[in-house]
Amino acid sequence: MCRLLAYKGTPIIFDELLYKPHNSLIQQSTKAREMEEPLNGDGFGLGWYAPEISKEPATFISLNPAWSNRNLRSLSAKIKTDCLLAHIRAASVGGVSEANCHPFQYGSLLMAHNGNVHSFSKIKRELRNELNDEMYHWIKGQTDSEHLFAFLINHILTGKGSFTIENLIESYEFTFAHVKALMAKHGIEEPAFLNLVITNGEFIIASRYVTDTQHEPRTLYHSEGARYIVEDGVSYLAAPEDDDQAVLIVSEKLTDDDHWSMIPKNHFVIVEPSLNVRIRPIKA
Amino acid sequence: MCRLLAYKGTPIIFDELLYKPHNSLIQQSTKAREMEEPLNGDGFGLGWYAPEISKEPATFISLNPAWSNRNLRSLSAKIKTDCLLAHIRAASVGGVSEANCHPFQYGSLLMAHNGNVHSFSKIKRELRNELNDEMYHWIKGQTDSEHLFAFLINHILTGKGSFTIENLIESYEFTFAHVKALMAKHGIEEPAFLNLVITNGEFIIASRYVTDTQHEPRTLYHSEGARYIVEDGVSYLAAPEDDDQAVLIVSEKLTDDDHWSMIPKNHFVIVEPSLNVRIRPIKA
Amino acid sequence: MCRLLAYKGTPIIFDELLYKPHNSLIQQSTKAREMEEPLNGDGFGLGWYAPEISKEPATFISLNPAWSNRNLRSLSAKIKTDCLLAHIRAASVGGVSEANCHPFQYGSLLMAHNGNVHSFSKIKRELRNELNDEMYHWIKGQTDSEHLFAFLINHILTGKGSFTIENLIESYEFTFAHVKALMAKHGIEEPAFLNLVITNGEFIIASRYVTDTQHEPRTLYHSEGARYIVEDGVSYLAAPEDDDQAVLIVSEKLTDDDHWSMIPKNHFVIVEPSLNVRIRPIKA
Amino acid sequence: MCRLLAYKGTPIIFDELLYKPHNSLIQQSTKAREMEEPLNGDGFGLGWYAPEISKEPATFISLNPAWSNRNLRSLSAKIKTDCLLAHIRAASVGGVSEANCHPFQYGSLLMAHNGNVHSFSKIKRELRNELNDEMYHWIKGQTDSEHLFAFLINHILTGKGSFTIENLIESYEFTFAHVKALMAKHGIEEPAFLNLVITNGEFIIASRYVTDTQHEPRTLYHSEGARYIVEDGVSYLAAPEDDDQAVLIVSEKLTDDDHWSMIPKNHFVIVEPSLNVRIRPIKA
Repeated sequence: MCRLLAYKGTPIIFDELLYKPHNSLIQQSTKAREMEEPLNGDGFGLGWYAPEISKEPATFISLNPAWSNRNLRSLSAKIKTDCLLAHIRAASVGGVSEANCHPFQYGSLLMAHNGNVHSFSKIKRELRNELNDEMYHWIKGQTDSEHLFAFLINHILTGKGSFTIENLIESYEFTFAHVKALMAKHGIEEPAFLNLVITNGEFIIASRYVTDTQHEPRTLYHSEGARYIVEDGVSYLAAPEDDDQAVLIVSEKLTDDDHWSMIPKNHFVIVEPSLNVRIRPIKA
Repeated sequence: MCRLLAYKGTPIIFDELLYKPHNSLIQQSTKAREMEEPLNGDGFGLGWYAPEISKEPATFISLNPAWSNRNLRSLSAKIKTDCLLAHIRAASVGGVSEANCHPFQYGSLLMAHNGNVHSFSKIKRELRNELNDEMYHWIKGQTDSEHLFAFLINHILTGKGSFTIENLIESYEFTFAHVKALMAKHGIEEPAFLNLVITNGEFIIASRYVTDTQHEPRTLYHSEGARYIVEDGVSYLAAPEDDDQAVLIVSEKLTDDDHWSMIPKNHFVIVEPSLNVRIRPIKA
Repeated sequence: MCRLLAYKGTPIIFDELLYKPHNSLIQQSTKAREMEEPLNGDGFGLGWYAPEISKEPATFISLNPAWSNRNLRSLSAKIKTDCLLAHIRAASVGGVSEANCHPFQYGSLLMAHNGNVHSFSKIKRELRNELNDEMYHWIKGQTDSEHLFAFLINHILTGKGSFTIENLIESYEFTFAHVKALMAKHGIEEPAFLNLVITNGEFIIASRYVTDTQHEPRTLYHSEGARYIVEDGVSYLAAPEDDDQAVLIVSEKLTDDDHWSMIPKNHFVIVEPSLNVRIRPIKA
Repeated sequence: MCRLLAYKGTPIIFDELLYKPHNSLIQQSTKAREMEEPLNGDGFGLGWYAPEISKEPATFISLNPAWSNRNLRSLSAKIKTDCLLAHIRAASVGGVSEANCHPFQYGSLLMAHNGNVHSFSKIKRELRNELNDEMYHWIKGQTDSEHLFAFLINHILTGKGSFTIENLIESYEFTFAHVKALMAKHGIEEPAFLNLVITNGEFIIASRYVTDTQHEPRTLYHSEGARYIVEDGVSYLAAPEDDDQAVLIVSEKLTDDDHWSMIPKNHFVIVEPSLNVRIRPIKA
């Protein structure tokens, strides 16, 4: 099972999120205490924005376990960002290769996925063939995640053209509905778990979605606060007290307290550039 | 905690030992169900002999988790050997680098270590300075294991000269006694765990040893049989029924049955070229 | 530009071919004296057969330069084979990833390619869409080479069914003709260079082919002899003197003497299981 | 032969230095047109400072050829720094491993070396034994370069204590004199080439030095200007026209014009925090 984390807010040094908390993604990946299947590290990926330099994000991908990547450890103490998306992969569909590592990047957009489309190979070919040439050739790996992202982008490229929050929301819904239709056509009865996080560095959109009614989607939480704090290895978002602001979206709660709100089933959570957070249902 | 396995017997294809058993080293490294600290794979190493080609072994080392190493998986199905030594590392002393991966090789000898010397850096410099120039420069990494092996070889090179079972036994005992003396001199009170397996492809010597009387050494088992069998993912050594023979020495039992004999505390287990197995006390 | 080598004959230790000759593939990759673009090593791949264990080959792939791959160096001195296919890649189409490394494997077949299809992305989608589902999903990378091999196999799978020399020859010709037709349809005027080597461990088929009449195909040589010899870093095939036999097919001559025969333009060279060598024209 | 580059000045995005110039370190490493031995990439390393975050630098090391490292390429377009030290390694002493990659880091200091100490293993043990325990254990690899840097730091740690320009200059001279004495003692007659660049992010010190009188040291140039510019793949430092300032120190000239001053034989070049550049003789 994969894990993901998205942060948007006051600029922060990476290792505050990645290494210092006892319960950080990377610490989790080495401990794996509560999981049936440990996060053995079939790839770790990180994307972040430096808006003063470029609208496009930088990405860093590791096929080795994140905890022993000396470059990542060194960089993490020396780079700040106001928007970061991190993902640890447990290989389900597609081998362990750079091309299969999240986050995926298209222009200024990053995407990470927690979940999977069951029996994806049954619909992969048809889904890919609906892409325009640009997005067809953009795909480099084998994962369901990359194909979903390509389809979602393709719908905008061949339609409304601009990657606004509203257009992305509409494309999420179109994509999910289309995946459901393809699954039905090809007789896939098991649900698809579609928690997708997309950001352009200014806003974040995340879905908590499952394609059938009997199952619960994968967990997805958000937390808001004045700012992100790590003390003695415990991280939290301090209660609002001034203008600093920060939002976290995570696949698992980082602490046991009540700072974390579960996104309702089949809903979006949207972090606007102002850091205002909206929840709204997914129509698909 | 590291894990190790040594096999000597009828030629066998690697993946019979490494992949096919549910409880193989590599399967263990991905499941790690019963361990407090999972074997997350800070390095995997394999050494084996092809006596028809060379007296020196081949080695294969992976810093990535073994289970996602496509070269290892491909090779394992296509190479046979009558003597193999495998090791999975959980980094304790020394970073994750090729130079710190077991097994270590000196000429026709291979060595793998399960355990550690507590506060090794306190005695490392003095231990290394006692080596002759050849062995001093032979050391490429930082681990206690590599230094112990260098010291053990050095004692033979500067003494009896030949790497016979008896000379190795004597050098094990000299090395362990010397480590104890250095630990005492430098005020190290915690025990050193010294399960070392050495082979030249013809014989195997393994120690189950701890430097103090209050602690138990790390576990070490051996099993003997007519031949090694994997059925439905369960591996065992069949009871002797003909001239085929095979011996396994492992840090953990591969099955729950009574095929496995624990090496007594502070004893050697010696597999002779005839596959005869001897147990004898370690005098140190 | 890529380089390739295929060997079939008396069993040989790998490093006799790969490291010992001054002019070996790996030595060439570090020196690159005579090339405009040095072989900087965007991937090295090796496939070989151990017929006593399996009909399927083992493969070993390195994204690092071959000369610094310690596993390859260690293995090469300890494994023998009677049939080996090696390839050094200089990335032209497709990034540097395991999925893009030659040789490609399908069942018992290996394939390596020297050359390229110009503007391949213009015909890639159409070519891939003609594959059956098995071969469509078999493709893991982005290279023209992998797609050509998939198409060639697909033609047999959906036709004559068995991978005999004659069926492979016919499929080569069908594939080349089809690529030419697709190139014409999509307005690609530059030639495609199609030196493909396919082996199943028992026979080797290699094409020396270019799609237009004005250009010469890439070079391709073969050499036959009693056995392969390396003396003082110079390798050659000794003149027939007894029953030992060996054949080499190489993209560049390994020595300056007259042991090497250039395959004529647009011809196959076929090494039969008997080691008999046939040359015949490519009808495409 | 290794190559190195140090930059100090107006903050600059990495790829302006590393990728965009036709003659950049990384472009050179793929072309290697004028070299007898191409820079095949036995490791690439980069260190840089983000003074607003930490006095300690970040480092990034690649054992793969730099040109195919996707993380490096992505990072390079998104990070700015006012002080960067880059090094491409052609392995001479020590294997290809992370521990042998330049630049080496000690606290806020970075060091890269172009050159070598001939027959270094003859003096390595004695040199290392003179270190205090901290520096003895600080060494992780096998290179002459890392040992020289450890010795140079050790002299300050056990003496004047602070890493000022003057103390570093004195320690360079002490280290070079000591290496010469050890070489004489152990009968090494070939010269040692000791171009060492050390920076703390605020100043840069570089030596151009050879231990005997008959040989020339390795080349080392500096260039100063108003700012660093890349146009159409050609990089240069613009003539002073305003307060922006930048200094480059490089092992090879980046352009054929007269912007580059060779450091005189056995001299230091010192870039002060003000960007003032001083040349002074090395007394050793």
